[in-house]
Amino acid sequence: MLPSYRRLVVVALAAALVSCGRSGAPVDTIWSARYVVTMDPSRTVIENGAIAISGDHIVEAGPRSEIDAKYTSSEHLDRPNAILAPGLINTHTHAAMSLFRGIADDVRLQDWLDNYIFPAEAKNVDREFVRWGTRLAALEMALSGTTTYTDMYYFEDTVAEETKAAGLRGVLGETIIGFPSPDFKSPQAALAGTETFLKTYANDPLIVPAVAPHSIYTNSDETLVACRRLADRYQKPLVIHLSETKKENDDSLAQRKKTPTAALDALGVLNGWTIAAHGVWLDDADLAILKSHGTGIAHCPSSNMMLSSGVAPVTKMLALQMPVGLGTDGVAGSNNDVNMMEEMDLAAKLQKVTTNDPRSLPAKDAFAMATILGAKALRMDKLIGSIEAGKRADLITIRIDEPNAVPMYDVYSQLVYALKGADISDVMVDGRTIVRGRQMLTLDEPSILAKAREYREKVSASLRSPKP
Amino acid sequence: MLPSYRRLVVVALAAALVSCGRSGAPVDTIWSARYVVTMDPSRTVIENGAIAISGDHIVEAGPRSEIDAKYTSSEHLDRPNAILAPGLINTHTHAAMSLFRGIADDVRLQDWLDNYIFPAEAKNVDREFVRWGTRLAALEMALSGTTTYTDMYYFEDTVAEETKAAGLRGVLGETIIGFPSPDFKSPQAALAGTETFLKTYANDPLIVPAVAPHSIYTNSDETLVACRRLADRYQKPLVIHLSETKKENDDSLAQRKKTPTAALDALGVLNGWTIAAHGVWLDDADLAILKSHGTGIAHCPSSNMMLSSGVAPVTKMLALQMPVGLGTDGVAGSNNDVNMMEEMDLAAKLQKVTTNDPRSLPAKDAFAMATILGAKALRMDKLIGSIEAGKRADLITIRIDEPNAVPMYDVYSQLVYALKGADISDVMVDGRTIVRGRQMLTLDEPSILAKAREYREKVSASLRSPKP
Repeated sequence: MLPSYRRLVVVALAAALVSCGRSGAPVDTIWSARYVVTMDPSRTVIENGAIAISGDHIVEAGPRSEIDAKYTSSEHLDRPNAILAPGLINTHTHAAMSLFRGIADDVRLQDWLDNYIFPAEAKNVDREFVRWGTRLAALEMALSGTTTYTDMYYFEDTVAEETKAAGLRGVLGETIIGFPSPDFKSPQAALAGTETFLKTYANDPLIVPAVAPHSIYTNSDETLVACRRLADRYQKPLVIHLSETKKENDDSLAQRKKTPTAALDALGVLNGWTIAAHGVWLDDADLAILKSHGTGIAHCPSSNMMLSSGVAPVTKMLALQMPVGLGTDGVAGSNNDVNMMEEMDLAAKLQKVTTNDPRSLPAKDAFAMATILGAKALRMDKLIGSIEAGKRADLITIRIDEPNAVPMYDVYSQLVYALKGADISDVMVDGRTIVRGRQMLTLDEPSILAKAREYREKVSASLRSPKP
Repeated sequence: MLPSYRRLVVVALAAALVSCGRSGAPVDTIWSARYVVTMDPSRTVIENGAIAISGDHIVEAGPRSEIDAKYTSSEHLDRPNAILAPGLINTHTHAAMSLFRGIADDVRLQDWLDNYIFPAEAKNVDREFVRWGTRLAALEMALSGTTTYTDMYYFEDTVAEETKAAGLRGVLGETIIGFPSPDFKSPQAALAGTETFLKTYANDPLIVPAVAPHSIYTNSDETLVACRRLADRYQKPLVIHLSETKKENDDSLAQRKKTPTAALDALGVLNGWTIAAHGVWLDDADLAILKSHGTGIAHCPSSNMMLSSGVAPVTKMLALQMPVGLGTDGVAGSNNDVNMMEEMDLAAKLQKVTTNDPRSLPAKDAFAMATILGAKALRMDKLIGSIEAGKRADLITIRIDEPNAVPMYDVYSQLVYALKGADISDVMVDGRTIVRGRQMLTLDEPSILAKAREYREKVSASLRSPKP
């Protein structure tokens, strides 16, 4: 990952240190902080901890004194007033919709779709829109601690380009849907486009290409089955919305005499690597089906509250040891941000009030959902989601020296209930530092904000068409 | 309010300007911003707006060009990338509990009280604790946009001193409770202490002293009635917790055959200026009683979710045009911050998901709850809660040039769903600037954070007593 010149310098420096009596294996970078919250299987928290990083991966994490004794590096980021944690994983979003932030809030779903989202998308969404929308979302995600996100939108090849340029990790799938989309005229065309995408990103270090049928109610059975086959052929995930609303369930029961989960199962669509978003209206039989397939669930509390979709049975899913992560969903009327620090807080509080038990979804589990459980939901937990030797170096530091961060009695409580997206200081993905001291290093913030304001004028004008 | 020397300079400057051909009445300060969200009765939003301020009050708000033509000032704060809004009003908290931030989360109420809060308070809460805890909360409140807060805790005379020193506005009441408290051995002593407090702060520009019986279930009827009489004698508010939990209601029904509201009403305790916190378990008859008395309600969504208390019927209260504000509650296991920007977002989303209607509690109403409706809940809406000529200059600016703030289609949506406490830039209370460019001008942040960390050690040690 490093230019060979720098490797040479590091090696030379290590040799020099050894020759003057200090030992230590050379690594590219050492990050240290007041607390390292590893999210490893024992949930180890290392006080005054450090992480040695080489190339794209973590070499070792441990007490700072040990890491310093064992490794040498010309680069060292020390944050004595911060927590060092695994990067946050947003398991469901539509990133480019950031350009529609708050376009239509506080309205009924059908009104929202018919009078705002569909016309706005029809009139505005093209490749450039997706490019700038993804840049804006990437900026906001990175600055609030997200290192990996799952996306389902249009022009997903452009999303992939922009995700790589930002330095984020992405599970990205082109929306496959039963009507013409901004870039494909039919689901067949979208499937073909997806296959090209799967080939292009088959072995990318940052991008996991996915097959993304929108939902059971917007696709034919044939398309859904074709999606599963395509995903299996390339051994990539299938991403889908599932049981988001009561209407989706009611319609499925009326038309198919089966819940959406049972119907997808009967079609064989759930046989394999699947990430299902929402899962609000899952019953016990659905949960058993999803558990048996190891389906990952993306719980989106903010979106489910904002759109009155309902409350997903997260406490039940966790008791069943199902892999449940957190997602922000898109920002147009269903959030309106991509801030995972808020999603953790909201998820925990929503479970407590709806299960009538304050012990539901405790802070440690909520933080797990944003990290290692999210990685499990994406079936990427061998690579990301915790700080362990050999895993990808996807790391964040979070300041604990702002007034909202003191005093600290419990590190998980602080992470989930007290710390904010704005407390994120540094972000590394795949061994590359993309945010340092809240400065995004990979994107040009002023041009992105200027472009977002331009789009605001264009989108607003497009919605000003007369209504009946 | 200004030192006479500065007044002189301003007058001299104004005179000089007039003499060189420019007219305009002299004012102390002019604040201008991209948008001025007034929250006046017509909900006027002024694009490129400005506010002329003299002494403690707003002289006039309007388009910047008009204000600049009409007034002259040697001081001018211009925020072309911000919203200028009324300061936020936190209608219920226990500020000093900030030193217990996250001391015991995710536990049942009785466990929380018996094993954490009561022992922690018994062993730690003294005048110095309250002093530093209030300072910490004041810092966090101001930096997240709160200008007025309602407090109920102990050593409230020290809370008043620290509130004035921070430059915040406070409705402050010493907790009156049927067992020995850290500063008073009996409710009678607390009542006597409250009377002294009411006298001391009878005419303070920043402090509204209150009479604060903790609740119906922790006080005798005699104490509750004495509280009402004391409040009436001094024409100050009575602050009380009301129907926070189902248990409170069930116990009241079992013991008194009346809901807490009906029981308080029968005692005459609601006859007058009252601020009731929570109101989760109010039935229709309770709402009618509270409406008839004009009782202000402090809705605390985060606390009610975190402690599994339930969901207050806010949508119903607003339909009845009851004065409902927002409160953070204390930060020890029931929030864990005093960030009103989050409380707005949470309140709106919680109503939507529980009423099954995304139109419930729209952004404009949620922002009203944090400003003018909160002022009405405190019966202080003639003084604060909106930007109108003659009202106190309690103002905040909120940056709209961070990635989470663009693009902006609707200013209320942005305020409630997208902007964060960390986006607050400047804060003025009673005409005095207390935060400028996120720097707290009235408090010494490093010493407060250091002291909070010291208390962390002391409090942790006090909880390490052996448990059965």
